[in-house]
Order: sequence, then structure tokens, then C-alpha cells
Amino acid sequence: MEKKLIGIDLGGTTIKFAILTLTGEIQQKWSIQTNILDDGSHIVPDIITSIKHHLKLYQMQPSQFSGIGMGSPGTVDLKNGTVIGAYNLNWKTLQPVKTAIEKELGIPFLIDNDANVAALGERWKGAGENDNEVVFVTLGTGVGGGIISNGKLVHGVQAAGEIGHMIVEPNGYLCTCGNHGCLETYASATGIVRVARDLAEEYAGPAKLKKLLDDGQDISSKIVFDLAKEADQLALMVVDQVCGYLGLACANIGNLLNPSFIVIGGGVSAAGEFLLDRVKKYFLKYAFPTVRTTTELKLAQLGNDAGVIGAASLALTFN
Amino acid sequence: MEKKLIGIDLGGTTIKFAILTLTGEIQQKWSIQTNILDDGSHIVPDIITSIKHHLKLYQMQPSQFSGIGMGSPGTVDLKNGTVIGAYNLNWKTLQPVKTAIEKELGIPFLIDNDANVAALGERWKGAGENDNEVVFVTLGTGVGGGIISNGKLVHGVQAAGEIGHMIVEPNGYLCTCGNHGCLETYASATGIVRVARDLAEEYAGPAKLKKLLDDGQDISSKIVFDLAKEADQLALMVVDQVCGYLGLACANIGNLLNPSFIVIGGGVSAAGEFLLDRVKKYFLKYAFPTVRTTTELKLAQLGNDAGVIGAASLALTFN
Repeated sequence: MEKKLIGIDLGGTTIKFAILTLTGEIQQKWSIQTNILDDGSHIVPDIITSIKHHLKLYQMQPSQFSGIGMGSPGTVDLKNGTVIGAYNLNWKTLQPVKTAIEKELGIPFLIDNDANVAALGERWKGAGENDNEVVFVTLGTGVGGGIISNGKLVHGVQAAGEIGHMIVEPNGYLCTCGNHGCLETYASATGIVRVARDLAEEYAGPAKLKKLLDDGQDISSKIVFDLAKEADQLALMVVDQVCGYLGLACANIGNLLNPSFIVIGGGVSAAGEFLLDRVKKYFLKYAFPTVRTTTELKLAQLGNDAGVIGAASLALTFN
Repeated sequence: MEKKLIGIDLGGTTIKFAILTLTGEIQQKWSIQTNILDDGSHIVPDIITSIKHHLKLYQMQPSQFSGIGMGSPGTVDLKNGTVIGAYNLNWKTLQPVKTAIEKELGIPFLIDNDANVAALGERWKGAGENDNEVVFVTLGTGVGGGIISNGKLVHGVQAAGEIGHMIVEPNGYLCTCGNHGCLETYASATGIVRVARDLAEEYAGPAKLKKLLDDGQDISSKIVFDLAKEADQLALMVVDQVCGYLGLACANIGNLLNPSFIVIGGGVSAAGEFLLDRVKKYFLKYAFPTVRTTTELKLAQLGNDAGVIGAASLALTFN
């Protein structure tokens, strides 16, 4: 019988699991809450218990699986299968995830960071069309990414894919990383709100977004995009600035790597074609002519499943 | 007996050849003039004749070679071993280089573009320390580059490594590619002169560089750097601006790829540590903290030999 894969997407609030075929079809899917109490010491035992429970439920044996793959926040040591500094999990010290899981479940295990794993997912079964040259950009609370070249994840020395920290505006907004003008300071969900507040200060005309801000209401990147879609002038200015920086970053990624696809995902990408069209406009302005015609910008397609699918794909190497 | 490699570096004025050991030591080296007459139709026959002549001279047989590698300007089709659009060779139509050379010499042949091949050379035997993660930036008449990740050249769809066309100043100088503010418009040999002319116009104080320009003398990037080393105030301003853009581009390369080394070569890099120190200053300013401490900027070490050495390394795959 054909073997199966297990994918685990470890996040600060939930842990998602899936059982997949070797061709990437999800057969079972479940999730549990992440218990970050006691320095996150319950997380790995909870994962083990949950997998054991579900294998029993589905009447499956460890020998039926090629391997388990996992995406994790924090700094991941691929070789040793450890994680450190995942602050949203309360993992401050070194966590020997691979050792624990392989010992308890008897299935080979591989791990990578969450953005890389989502990139692998979109590449394998989503917008990346299983191409060997794919870059994934995720626009969420922060901006992250993963790069696949020659069919392999680019890790560099350790921190490749810091797309959110590409400098798009030297001397621009101060970033949490200490630098100024990182893409993340403009194009993350929080960055978009920051741009909105800034532009609102100088904005004089009528605009619903301006009124919301002046009234002291909480706004979100979703509200900005929704108002822009209704042709709110200030919201359109915000979206234009954000998409300008995103298009510039995508163009520079394209000029360096000329991937087949730059896939845009994460919560902010819910703005859909409205966002994509505007990013494309600036990408086409800034990209090298050959890149303009060979690198395509696309929206991510897998949503929340990108993580478990990409994680599972790590385990394909065991097959 | 251990086999040998042949490396060919095809340029617009000379064609360089070398015979190397499998560990990259140059054993013989020679060059011929590039005859670009008659649509460059003499080039491939000249290469074949020259290799035949030298094999005879050194009393060597084709069977003693693992393969021949070549770096070429223009658009290279790796699979078919053809070149098109190499205008400094007068190659406007498709040139079946591989077919001709393999047929006449009976040695397996591989080809890639000249910047990629120089990157391979510096990676193998130069500043790249044979690391798997190396980016090479060449500052010459234009600005080019090559990217090695996971030990392999990154080609993307076809035009990866267009480092000279990364946008460092949206709405900056017009580039030959049609875009504005490409790195090449500031940091190539011609770009540096352009910056000098521009800054000279607004510059009021005393400066030898200003006087040279006002006198209508021809200046070069070498003159700018030489004067800057003598503390000429205008030349220092030019160098500072150029290195600022170079440092920004290197930081964004680092943030994306986090290579072990970014190696700076090409004619302009003859300015040496004086250039490197200033580029590093801006790299450290703009790079993500992890990248700052793990990606190192270095000067190229192989000079003109990078091309033949890197070309030869292509043929290692035949071994």
C-alpha cells in the first residue's frame, strides 16, 4: 500500500495536523489548541498524544507513514531538528523536537521554519504549480517569505527569506529589527495602519477613513482595503503607497532570482485581485524587461492549508 | 592518470583559455584575440583551432579531458549549448556552440553566461571559499552578478542575477534597460562618472575633481577613487553616494539570500579596501541583524582568471 505523510503546522494559538498522500492530497485534517503554559513544555507531548490518538482513530500504524514534517516559528536547526527562540510558544530554550517525536512515534521527522514550509506548500499544491523557481511572500502581522530555487528551499547561512526586512525606503519607518524602511513597516497589517495614520494627518479632503481615524476608532488593514474598494480617496492613497513598496520589493526579488512565480499570501492578501493588480502595476514599473515577461505575480491559493501541506512535503525525502 | 578540464572565457576583445586540474589548479593558460568580423562567424572555429593547436603543443589527447566549460556574453541556452544576442561578438543569430565544439574536439562541453561563470570561479577558488552560498557582484562597464545557492547557480526562468538592475533609487537615473534608478546607473564605471558630473554641478568648494570636470577633461571611475583616496572632498562625496547604493543593494541581497559571502569584483573593485570599507558601512546599516553577522562582504581574488576557472568548473559535472 502507498505510504502516507503527516504535516504539522505549529502556531502560537493552534497546532494544525494533516494526513496526506504522497501526491499531496489531504485525507484527514484536525487541530488542537497550543498550550504555551510552563515554557511551552506541553507542546511536543500534546503533538505526540494527538497523533497517537488519531492514528488509533483511523486504525493506522506508524509503519504506514514515510515521515512527519513540521513548520515551526522561531529559529529552527534543520539538521538536529531543534527549535529555539519561538517567543509566541514560550520556547526560549532549545527544544529537541525531532528526538522526542521520533522516539515516541517511530516515524522519521523533519522540521523547517513556518514561512519556508508555507512556501513549500504553495509551491507544491498551490499557486506555485510545482515549479522549481518560486518565491512566497506572506503579508500578516509581519511580512515573511520563503524562496525555492533549483527546486530547493534557500536557507543561506541561516536567515534567508527575510523579505519583510528588505529595505524599500532608506530612512523610512523604524522597524522592530532596528533598521529603517523595511518592507514590513509598510506592507504588514500593522504597517498598513501606520501608513493610514500618517497619510491621514496630512489629508484634507473628505474621506471615511479620515473620519474613522479622527474619531479615534480602531482601524485594520482590512478596513483600509474595504474602503479603498469603495473608492475612499485616502484609503486609495494608502493602498497605492503600500502596493508601491510591495511592487518595488517584488521587482527586486525578480531582478535577483527571476522566479516563475512570486506568490503573495497571508491575511492581507485576502484583499485579492484588488491588491494584486496594484502590486503588479509597480512590479512592471520596476522589474527588468526580461523579468517583467517571465516572472508572474499570483495570489496564494491554499490559505491555512499551506502550512500542513508544505510541512508534509518535507517528509517526501524519506520516501 | 587524473583527467583535466578546459575553461574558456569568451569576451568581446579576447578569448582566454586554460587547462586545469580537477582541483582547479591552472596548468596552462593562453589567449587569442576575438575576431568579431563576418557576424562573429570566426569565433567558434578560432576556438577549436586554438585548442587543437595547444593540445598538440602539450602532447595531450581529447581523452585526457573530462570536459570543456565556457562563459559567454549574450543569452545562453544551457541545455542546447547555444548563444544568441551577444552584441559585442556580433552574434545576433543563434550560435550552436556546443554542437560545433563537441563535434570537432570530441570532448563534452557546457556553457553558461559570463557573469555566472565568474561567480563559479570566485566561489570555487577565490573569495567564495568553495562555500555553497555565494553571491558575486561585478562592477565594470555595467554591473552584473551570479548567485550560488545550495551549491548551484540560480538561473531562475532565464535571467536571474540581474543585480545591476535592482532598483536602488525609484525615479533615479534613467538606465539603458528603460527603468529608473538601477544600481548600474550609479555603481558601474560609467555610473560613477555620471554621479561625479551631477554632484560637481552643485558643488561649490575647492576640489581637484571639480576642476578636472570644469576643464572638460575625461574622467574615469579610477580617477574618482584615486582622488577620494587623496581626500578630495567632491570625490569623497561621489564615493559615498556610490557606496551607499552598493551597500543598500548588498543588504537587500543579504536579507533575501543570507549568503556566506557577497564577493565584489570587476574593474571598479580595483579600488580595493577603500571601496569595500565604505560599502560595508552601508551594508551594516541596512542589513537585517542576523544577516549583518553571518553574511560577509569580500573583494574578489582571482581577477581575470575567474572566468576560465569558473568555466572549467562547469565541466566538473562530467567527471
